[in-house]
Amino acid sequence: METQNFIALDNLLCQTQKRVDRYLNGLFSKSISNQQLVKAMHYASIDGGKRIRPLLVYASAKAVGASIEDADAPACAVELIHSYSLVHDDLPAMDDDALRRGKPSVHKAFSEATAILVGDALQSLAFQCLSQQKSSLTAETKLTMIEILSEATGVEGMTGGQAMDLRAESHNVKLKSLENIHRLKTGALIKASIRLGALCNPKTTDKQFTILENFADNIGLAFQVQDDILDEIGDTITLGKPQGSDRAQSKATYVSLLGIDEARKKANNLSKDAIDSLAELSLSANVLRELASFVVTRIR
Amino acid sequence: METQNFIALDNLLCQTQKRVDRYLNGLFSKSISNQQLVKAMHYASIDGGKRIRPLLVYASAKAVGASIEDADAPACAVELIHSYSLVHDDLPAMDDDALRRGKPSVHKAFSEATAILVGDALQSLAFQCLSQQKSSLTAETKLTMIEILSEATGVEGMTGGQAMDLRAESHNVKLKSLENIHRLKTGALIKASIRLGALCNPKTTDKQFTILENFADNIGLAFQVQDDILDEIGDTITLGKPQGSDRAQSKATYVSLLGIDEARKKANNLSKDAIDSLAELSLSANVLRELASFVVTRIR
Repeated sequence: METQNFIALDNLLCQTQKRVDRYLNGLFSKSISNQQLVKAMHYASIDGGKRIRPLLVYASAKAVGASIEDADAPACAVELIHSYSLVHDDLPAMDDDALRRGKPSVHKAFSEATAILVGDALQSLAFQCLSQQKSSLTAETKLTMIEILSEATGVEGMTGGQAMDLRAESHNVKLKSLENIHRLKTGALIKASIRLGALCNPKTTDKQFTILENFADNIGLAFQVQDDILDEIGDTITLGKPQGSDRAQSKATYVSLLGIDEARKKANNLSKDAIDSLAELSLSANVLRELASFVVTRIR
Repeated sequence: METQNFIALDNLLCQTQKRVDRYLNGLFSKSISNQQLVKAMHYASIDGGKRIRPLLVYASAKAVGASIEDADAPACAVELIHSYSLVHDDLPAMDDDALRRGKPSVHKAFSEATAILVGDALQSLAFQCLSQQKSSLTAETKLTMIEILSEATGVEGMTGGQAMDLRAESHNVKLKSLENIHRLKTGALIKASIRLGALCNPKTTDKQFTILENFADNIGLAFQVQDDILDEIGDTITLGKPQGSDRAQSKATYVSLLGIDEARKKANNLSKDAIDSLAELSLSANVLRELASFVVTRIR
């Protein structure tokens, strides 16, 4: 049964990848002024990504009975933000990673200046994508989506978390600080993905929102714990980035603070809590349930 | 008479600076998670900037009879985008400028990683500011503002222009390419400022929009020609950045392509065309007229 679920999820991830790639290609094809920058943006965002965040948007939209078409723009917007953050995080002045998604990072394949501009332009495109979406949603809802995504991206979200993470490298970090860093660095965008999906149906109730947000908090953290585990035990080829790079930078991780066994236990508990929190939602939330299992069993 | 106008404009610039600083301080004060990043964002965006783009928003809003309060959010949003672009443009991998607005650039005062994150967070904040604005405007109008600003900022606007500009450094550039670069690099945000101001009154007519956009095209270019002239003849203290840095990087500029006298003539003609294009607007467009003169007579 579990194997079947994973096959179904694999299919879904694959379908999501194709759907997102098609939509992103559509966005890029509108750009005519600067083919070289577009090429680098394409390199940074199409092919290779797992598309977990877009799938969270689609799965959350599905859980509240929204149409998949209305979830396209927010799904791609969160992926554009995620892609921009990877490009900037890989820069020499940041995490200095030469490899990403199994190929040279943008600053290696192009140049550092291009990588900075690619990240900048991908961020703008995310907000352009949300503001220009041709969906059945009202202007108020589209505006709320932009509010949620901009907040999750900026100083009170992902970017703030990355700043705290960089500072933490040179300090002794306690578990509570680590959780706070990751709540912002990866959790904020995962939560935004879930919230954007829920907004795709104007009839989503406050109660459904609360359930989905609790779910998001749990899998956001589970995702990060698993990332730390993979950084410790994965291999470079499967990960698509150098294994052990966190340890090499003597970064505080869940593994370094808890040990590998406790970290695994924590990830599994979070995943279970996430699934439990969906109890009141019907079968329509099944993809979210599968994702919560996948997040802690994935190997890359 | 002309002197009087400039005194009035100086006052207006000063008032705009205070108004923008107050509004930006309000935005920053909402951030509680990451005081160190906020401090660097503050450093990058408050104090010292001329605030020409916000003044363009206010002046354009005034020209169409909109309220100044409704122009606050778009005025600050364009300034946040402008500030982020300066921080990233100054990075070693880009223009490598150690000085900005008379003080060390963000990557010198803080670190390169911080400068990258500051630019990223300022961009997010611009869209957050537009999506959360408490103005009398409709959600549709706010959404249109985000559409305009995101397009002007991204690959089809400022960021695309900066990418072309960086590439142009190592190539022979003709006048037409130079104009195309600057239409994107500086022109797009100036035009967006004017368009956002015009949107602050829902009754702005298509004709008024066209007039204001023509004006924007002319002063956008005039602004850049004057920037090139100042880079050639200004001094470092007045400019607040190293004089002659374009020449040092053997960048194509209006001065290098046309010579100083022709460049001056061009700037003045563009300023005159900008003022002429406002003929059908009433006295309410006077600040725009003064700005068009100021743009080509400013010394920094």
